[in-house]
Amino acid sequence: MPLLEEMTWPEIDAAAKRGSTLVFIPGSVEQHGPHLPVGTDTYIPREIMVRVAELVDAVVAPVMPYGFKSKPQSGGGEGFPGTFSLNGITVINVVRDIIGAFIRKGFRNVFILNWHCENVEFVREGLNLAMADCGDRAKIVALDNPNALVDQGILDSLFAGDFPGWEREHAAIFETSMMLALKPELVRGELIADDEAEEFLPYSVYPAPARAIPGSGVLWHASKAAKGGGEKAAASMVEAIAAIIRKEFPYQPG
Amino acid sequence: MPLLEEMTWPEIDAAAKRGSTLVFIPGSVEQHGPHLPVGTDTYIPREIMVRVAELVDAVVAPVMPYGFKSKPQSGGGEGFPGTFSLNGITVINVVRDIIGAFIRKGFRNVFILNWHCENVEFVREGLNLAMADCGDRAKIVALDNPNALVDQGILDSLFAGDFPGWEREHAAIFETSMMLALKPELVRGELIADDEAEEFLPYSVYPAPARAIPGSGVLWHASKAAKGGGEKAAASMVEAIAAIIRKEFPYQPG
Amino acid sequence: MPLLEEMTWPEIDAAAKRGSTLVFIPGSVEQHGPHLPVGTDTYIPREIMVRVAELVDAVVAPVMPYGFKSKPQSGGGEGFPGTFSLNGITVINVVRDIIGAFIRKGFRNVFILNWHCENVEFVREGLNLAMADCGDRAKIVALDNPNALVDQGILDSLFAGDFPGWEREHAAIFETSMMLALKPELVRGELIADDEAEEFLPYSVYPAPARAIPGSGVLWHASKAAKGGGEKAAASMVEAIAAIIRKEFPYQPG
Amino acid sequence: MPLLEEMTWPEIDAAAKRGSTLVFIPGSVEQHGPHLPVGTDTYIPREIMVRVAELVDAVVAPVMPYGFKSKPQSGGGEGFPGTFSLNGITVINVVRDIIGAFIRKGFRNVFILNWHCENVEFVREGLNLAMADCGDRAKIVALDNPNALVDQGILDSLFAGDFPGWEREHAAIFETSMMLALKPELVRGELIADDEAEEFLPYSVYPAPARAIPGSGVLWHASKAAKGGGEKAAASMVEAIAAIIRKEFPYQPG
Amino acid sequence: MPLLEEMTWPEIDAAAKRGSTLVFIPGSVEQHGPHLPVGTDTYIPREIMVRVAELVDAVVAPVMPYGFKSKPQSGGGEGFPGTFSLNGITVINVVRDIIGAFIRKGFRNVFILNWHCENVEFVREGLNLAMADCGDRAKIVALDNPNALVDQGILDSLFAGDFPGWEREHAAIFETSMMLALKPELVRGELIADDEAEEFLPYSVYPAPARAIPGSGVLWHASKAAKGGGEKAAASMVEAIAAIIRKEFPYQPG
Amino acid sequence: MPLLEEMTWPEIDAAAKRGSTLVFIPGSVEQHGPHLPVGTDTYIPREIMVRVAELVDAVVAPVMPYGFKSKPQSGGGEGFPGTFSLNGITVINVVRDIIGAFIRKGFRNVFILNWHCENVEFVREGLNLAMADCGDRAKIVALDNPNALVDQGILDSLFAGDFPGWEREHAAIFETSMMLALKPELVRGELIADDEAEEFLPYSVYPAPARAIPGSGVLWHASKAAKGGGEKAAASMVEAIAAIIRKEFPYQPG
Repeated sequence: MPLLEEMTWPEIDAAAKRGSTLVFIPGSVEQHGPHLPVGTDTYIPREIMVRVAELVDAVVAPVMPYGFKSKPQSGGGEGFPGTFSLNGITVINVVRDIIGAFIRKGFRNVFILNWHCENVEFVREGLNLAMADCGDRAKIVALDNPNALVDQGILDSLFAGDFPGWEREHAAIFETSMMLALKPELVRGELIADDEAEEFLPYSVYPAPARAIPGSGVLWHASKAAKGGGEKAAASMVEAIAAIIRKEFPYQPG
Repeated sequence: MPLLEEMTWPEIDAAAKRGSTLVFIPGSVEQHGPHLPVGTDTYIPREIMVRVAELVDAVVAPVMPYGFKSKPQSGGGEGFPGTFSLNGITVINVVRDIIGAFIRKGFRNVFILNWHCENVEFVREGLNLAMADCGDRAKIVALDNPNALVDQGILDSLFAGDFPGWEREHAAIFETSMMLALKPELVRGELIADDEAEEFLPYSVYPAPARAIPGSGVLWHASKAAKGGGEKAAASMVEAIAAIIRKEFPYQPG
Repeated sequence: MPLLEEMTWPEIDAAAKRGSTLVFIPGSVEQHGPHLPVGTDTYIPREIMVRVAELVDAVVAPVMPYGFKSKPQSGGGEGFPGTFSLNGITVINVVRDIIGAFIRKGFRNVFILNWHCENVEFVREGLNLAMADCGDRAKIVALDNPNALVDQGILDSLFAGDFPGWEREHAAIFETSMMLALKPELVRGELIADDEAEEFLPYSVYPAPARAIPGSGVLWHASKAAKGGGEKAAASMVEAIAAIIRKEFPYQPG
Repeated sequence: MPLLEEMTWPEIDAAAKRGSTLVFIPGSVEQHGPHLPVGTDTYIPREIMVRVAELVDAVVAPVMPYGFKSKPQSGGGEGFPGTFSLNGITVINVVRDIIGAFIRKGFRNVFILNWHCENVEFVREGLNLAMADCGDRAKIVALDNPNALVDQGILDSLFAGDFPGWEREHAAIFETSMMLALKPELVRGELIADDEAEEFLPYSVYPAPARAIPGSGVLWHASKAAKGGGEKAAASMVEAIAAIIRKEFPYQPG
Repeated sequence: MPLLEEMTWPEIDAAAKRGSTLVFIPGSVEQHGPHLPVGTDTYIPREIMVRVAELVDAVVAPVMPYGFKSKPQSGGGEGFPGTFSLNGITVINVVRDIIGAFIRKGFRNVFILNWHCENVEFVREGLNLAMADCGDRAKIVALDNPNALVDQGILDSLFAGDFPGWEREHAAIFETSMMLALKPELVRGELIADDEAEEFLPYSVYPAPARAIPGSGVLWHASKAAKGGGEKAAASMVEAIAAIIRKEFPYQPG
Repeated sequence: MPLLEEMTWPEIDAAAKRGSTLVFIPGSVEQHGPHLPVGTDTYIPREIMVRVAELVDAVVAPVMPYGFKSKPQSGGGEGFPGTFSLNGITVINVVRDIIGAFIRKGFRNVFILNWHCENVEFVREGLNLAMADCGDRAKIVALDNPNALVDQGILDSLFAGDFPGWEREHAAIFETSMMLALKPELVRGELIADDEAEEFLPYSVYPAPARAIPGSGVLWHASKAAKGGGEKAAASMVEAIAAIIRKEFPYQPG
């Protein structure tokens, strides 16, 4: 039972005292095309970490369901229906407060898994400030780009030569495959389709121009997604994360 | 499927456009004794609102799982293991940002159900600021004290003359009964017990004195909880909330 | 001479050093009907504490005259003429700064008397933060609901069976009686009247609906107010507060 | 009855509607030597404005009793006992919120009298922000250096050739004379004495060196103060302020 | 004369009115090894934009010389001597305020060139907020990763097969070549050397472990830098940026 | 080479360790009439400090080019074209962060030279907060009014009886003379002219009235400026500042 919200206080206290790894997941509510739920960026990392927690002694804190504003080129942007976000300063303060609370209550090993790329830098600053508040009394490992951990052979097979770069991999081959593997009941199979922006800009424009955002919210070719590839990728990622936790937080009795 | 995180953006967009009620639940991670999970303040209101959403056209946004600091007299206080909280300013800003996002994206009817009493005033200020930001373009109904909606006869029967006041009703008769009714698999039945503080102070002391906090985190008599009474109370609350939504947000085709 | 603003620095320094209790009163500028001044929430607690300071060694700091926004159900709300308020974050920071200043300058016993119920939670958070800033170097006692200290017999006699709940007791029987006892020259006797909202809502609506706010700003039956009852209530409250200070801050040579 | 806290909401509403000038006074709690109370910076401007309000139609809002940190060279600095201050950001926000509230409720003519020189720039920024929030819907006149309005002949006679510059005029000739004129009952006559720092620095040093701060908190020669001179100066200032209000806010039926 | 700080107000006003592009450069003070100055992240983009401003009608605002905290993997981290940074919230607010000021004063075309990768997301949020403040009255183009604009052939020749990824390209081949081309007098030629961390971590660790940071602050092989290659890269970048400005801000009479 | 931005990290580290004085200059972008550049408030203090650094061991940190809002009476105000400013809270936080960073990295002697008078109080508060953050581990000397250090005879000769007070000395005799001495190539000699406001108000009005602001932005008689007088004034100021640094920070091997 690795979910902190399901645990009682004596169980949590015991976990902190024995050196269990506290896992925090900053999420988002962001459009993921007509076939994936807006909670995709929370479903995937939570499922991954529940599996990791079967391999190492870890407690998964409640996913923070709201995150930083979507970027047009990598998520459709804040103008898209179905996307609801926090200001950057709010994200910083949520992370600062909550990670500080975990550290003050005795957790010394903290692992952050972030799936929504727009969160990364605001989470980083929240961690900086929490560490300063707490006099560096804990060790934190933050995984900002989990995709890069997946075995390259699995990725090559999954993309089959059609890899658009991670930035455009939104609601597309990889994310759809992962959801087919991890939360298949939430994938609208009949609505999976391909799309891409009229123009991919190597810079940011404010306000975001329509030509840079596909109408569907799918930034690449979701139709190539495959449940089997998603399962292999998920398994590879779970193993790689467990290995990081074992290396960086040596106590792992589980 | 009333959970916003499970919906796709076209489904959410359609809900906003037809006048569906957006439900937001501010939660907490707070100790609830040795028998209830620390996520109790999010499980109960979420279950209640999922049932309400079967009666009226409503979409339940992701529960905000972290809330304001626990009060010693009503929750054991911030010093208790298992309690992890946000600063008040952070709660204000989370509510301001997220409710503002929902309003900007077209939701005009917003309902707030809050179970963690410490959140109430910070949520109120977040709503004040979001309304000011949005030029009052929406109507918000916030239910700060849902317990008061339960039919008095049901409450009388549940408490059987042993009602300590809502403030002390933490991890005790009412909350345990509700959890037995709504999330029985998360109640550690064998650990349900009674407790109370050595002294109940009619004022706040900083730092909180040990004599005002029971060691178990149960603030009253949990052993009197009953699943049947919880079911009746939950049903009564669901009906009362549906009635408020129908009255205040007249469109309700469902 | 218990008013800090009237004291010189050597007098204040001596008071801090001998362990005198520092009293801080967060107030408000809020409409109180056509018969009571908008400063009612500062006049009453200041008068009460001046009397308490005759019984125990206490110094009353300048009342903070502005407070958090009025709640429609308990004060008429922010839309009412004559009500001028601070944002919640500002209240938190005022309390944090000032209480921190008192503690840094040597006061170790701090007592907070709050009359304006809307202030309570923001004052609480200010105290939390000041204590964290100061490493818990002081003890603070905050009285959030002073009315509850009044002898029940006095209250019963004052309300004579017409008690609307403390929330609606705004500019009504209790407050008017207290002002008649403590600041009679500021009560417009000829304008005392009864009123109540068309509908008392057990939830909050934004923007506040007119039907929930009486046009006069009197939320209940002010005509039943009585100077004699106010005097008894004030005396009872003064004694109860002095008892709390003696108990929680044992040094009391006065 | 020009004090807003003593007025009822219908009286205040009428004043706003007829174009009365709203007066706001940012104060301080700052040591003023062994002979003057720490509230000196609020007593003087409040008394001045009450007299001005007899000449023009003005309402004096509750004095904000706490202000920005004392400067060593002009007030003894924050290290002095008896001085309790707000952070600069808090002062900015208090002014922003409260002036914004007055403007939103209909006051179109706002006059600021500031006595505590350390407040000036933070009040200015608060006014900037309130005006931006309100779309410049009011006119504000802020008097930052009221001393400069006093008739030069009166000042010459008061200082009799011993003028140290306004910066060092703290708890000295001018302020003591004003208090003798306006609040004589709060002046400890027997404790009036002269002092000055060992060294007057034309720059600021952090932390403030002892040699730049006189032990008494009197920064110059208080013994030369005279009640008669204070009365003349006060009368001159009252007239000058009334003239400014008449000029800048032409409506003045009183 | 494209530097705004050297211009007079009538010249700036004319530039804004004719539609000139306002260029803002967020910089940093960050260690760049023993051979490059800590101002490297401001020297390079400023020189680049001065050259661009010879091709298009642009005004270069004063470089903001301080930026967000250095990342261990890409800049040596905040623990390194010679690195002095702002908190993320401060960066957001500086950008929000200054870009807002430019827009309010009439600039409608704003171009951001950022060289310090750690700034990107905080600048983005500052731009989001400034645009919201100003009701989207301007168009902003932000170039977050200028390196990617350089002609691939030039990069291939410069790196000669030894490209470590842009993240590790700190004080190494590319930056040293650019400085040799643009600010040769500030390069300590005799101190150019190669280095790399003991271990390159694909995740972030707090506090940063020594094994992930090379002692010299050079993250890769600076000895391969070449002035000629730097000149070609700079010219290619200048042309690419001018092309973006011409495309996105069509008015370009220069 | 006293400019920190031109130094490498080992050079900076050595300077901190040997007790070198760190100089920080808060600047502004503010209109200075048709003949002086908007960067005048940064050019003058930077040139002064570079000269001072030839006399004492000092390192000049990058000038903060943006400052607090211009005051109408002393700089033309925020409405003037060519003036671009930060909010006061942002200035406080920039100073707090950067000075804190310098102190944490080992600088124990910090000197602040401020030319833009509107910055003074916000810089002061930033210094207060940085000192509190760092537990007073450094000594800071802040020169808020450098003009007052210039030899009186030089000033008398420069003004020749036409001194308007330092407040109005904006883009006028003194500043133009200093720029003629220190940055002659940036002075538009043919555009130097005299001006003054229709009315000089001894109080602040919001919004600023046109009658209080001269159309040229020159607040007094620039035509009387003289390069020779500027050179003498600059030399006098350089000497006086070097003397302060030698006195307050005794180590000065240079």
